[in-house]
Amino acid sequence: MSKVVFGVDLGGTTVKMGYFSPEGELIEKWEIPTIKDNGGSQILPDIAASIKSKMAEKNISKEDVIGVGIGVPGPVSSDGVIYKAANLGWGVFSVKSEMEQLLDGIPAMAGNDANVAALGEMWCGGGKGYNNMVAVTLGTGVGGGIIVNGKILTGGTGSGGEIGHIHVDDNETETCGCGKKGCLEQYTSATGVTRLANIRLKKDDKPSQLRNGEVNSKTVWDAVKVGDSVAIDVANTFGEYLGKGLACVADVVNPEIFVIGGGVSKAGEVLIDYLKPSYTKYVFHGSKETKFALAKLGNDAGIYGAAKLVLDK
Amino acid sequence: MSKVVFGVDLGGTTVKMGYFSPEGELIEKWEIPTIKDNGGSQILPDIAASIKSKMAEKNISKEDVIGVGIGVPGPVSSDGVIYKAANLGWGVFSVKSEMEQLLDGIPAMAGNDANVAALGEMWCGGGKGYNNMVAVTLGTGVGGGIIVNGKILTGGTGSGGEIGHIHVDDNETETCGCGKKGCLEQYTSATGVTRLANIRLKKDDKPSQLRNGEVNSKTVWDAVKVGDSVAIDVANTFGEYLGKGLACVADVVNPEIFVIGGGVSKAGEVLIDYLKPSYTKYVFHGSKETKFALAKLGNDAGIYGAAKLVLDK
Repeated sequence: MSKVVFGVDLGGTTVKMGYFSPEGELIEKWEIPTIKDNGGSQILPDIAASIKSKMAEKNISKEDVIGVGIGVPGPVSSDGVIYKAANLGWGVFSVKSEMEQLLDGIPAMAGNDANVAALGEMWCGGGKGYNNMVAVTLGTGVGGGIIVNGKILTGGTGSGGEIGHIHVDDNETETCGCGKKGCLEQYTSATGVTRLANIRLKKDDKPSQLRNGEVNSKTVWDAVKVGDSVAIDVANTFGEYLGKGLACVADVVNPEIFVIGGGVSKAGEVLIDYLKPSYTKYVFHGSKETKFALAKLGNDAGIYGAAKLVLDK
Repeated sequence: MSKVVFGVDLGGTTVKMGYFSPEGELIEKWEIPTIKDNGGSQILPDIAASIKSKMAEKNISKEDVIGVGIGVPGPVSSDGVIYKAANLGWGVFSVKSEMEQLLDGIPAMAGNDANVAALGEMWCGGGKGYNNMVAVTLGTGVGGGIIVNGKILTGGTGSGGEIGHIHVDDNETETCGCGKKGCLEQYTSATGVTRLANIRLKKDDKPSQLRNGEVNSKTVWDAVKVGDSVAIDVANTFGEYLGKGLACVADVVNPEIFVIGGGVSKAGEVLIDYLKPSYTKYVFHGSKETKFALAKLGNDAGIYGAAKLVLDK
């Protein structure tokens, strides 16, 4: 039997799991529910049991398993210690050590879920072929995962890549979820796009198909694609903020490529068209040639990256 | 004879050189002029000759030399290739390979001068004991050197850490040397401090000792220290910009410590007092505890870091 590596993406409601060839072929994936009772103490045993059961089912011996990687929703140090995951009920402990014990010595690795997803996109997704990459997730919030020379940048306290809270507007009056004003997330998350659209719609009475139904990130981008000029105003404002924020990221880490994912990115390439002019305007010339691509792995990025975490160790 | 490592800091007018014990003790340092004739083709041979002559003088055998590191004023890839150094007349070539050839096979390493100086401060200066550090140089311009897990972050095209060109003011009307408007460098370099002071002085007729002589970074900070309220206004504006820019850097790479050097930093700890409130206001909470320190090695940071580059390889 050839070797395999397991990837686990631990979320607040489900645990996504899969196993891969060392070359990055996804052989099979499945999910189990995240049972958060008793301070989340059952979560890792549930994951270990599911892996063991899959190994038995597929006749995979312990020797065939290179290891098990796990992406966790919280800050994780490079040696696999989590510093609290509030929505799992977890405190501070070594996820890596506990997984290894539960798996009878199979090597384990742990990382922050957003960072791990970035690694997945670099391995087999939109960033394939690059070693210096920034993954940008435009979802409910805005997150980032920074890859330097093929490795996740975790930072001094596990807060590397918190690019959603870069300050991009001095005149903002509304407060971000983090307590500050003028964060990138306030304009470029799904909620941010909706907010920008509502502000624009209130400004005047200009006709727009957005006035006839629900206003959200999807309806805004759909309207942009059919030439709705109010929606285009919103896209321009969105692009101005996103380009400005990513220019700042590039001035710091000078990536070869930005890979953009998350719900908002379902709009497609058009999103990149709107951010590029602003990016070029704000960025230092040494990073002007940085590329932009869309994420490709969707919800599977986490299991891919978790597996890669083990292969890289 | 115990082992030694050479560090070379190649500048536009002089080459600083030194040799060290592997533990970071500077044994001796000296300088030679940078002769830039013929497209700078004599520079590396001059350096090699000087090293060989020092080895002969001190009875250091080839086997005693761990290697020679060199910091170069231009973007350098992690494998030692420089992509143009305009003020030396250099194009694209492997500084590492040429040095090794000139030194009869002694191992060499090359890095960007600002990044290498950052490494020096981490090894033996203000960042000693930390692995994740950002060095900030407030000189004629503003530069940065980013250290992640003990290694220099060079970036995809050697432009990592160009933090002087982070955008920090939407309302700036004057143009930065880079062609953009509102760069951190326009407010926090030596020239930037002078500019802020002149703008403040023109605003009204409030008495200030700055009205009686030359206005520059030193006279501004001297005036701050004796309670000159106009100078204090300037320091507040300076601190607002610097704190805002460094908050952005921290949101991206989450360092354990910022180490601040360059001419402006001669003002001392007072400079940190003025930037901290703004930093705390703008930064994401995960980086609120990041420390600030002053650089300690002055003009020797480059030779220390160049030596460390070799020890780390």
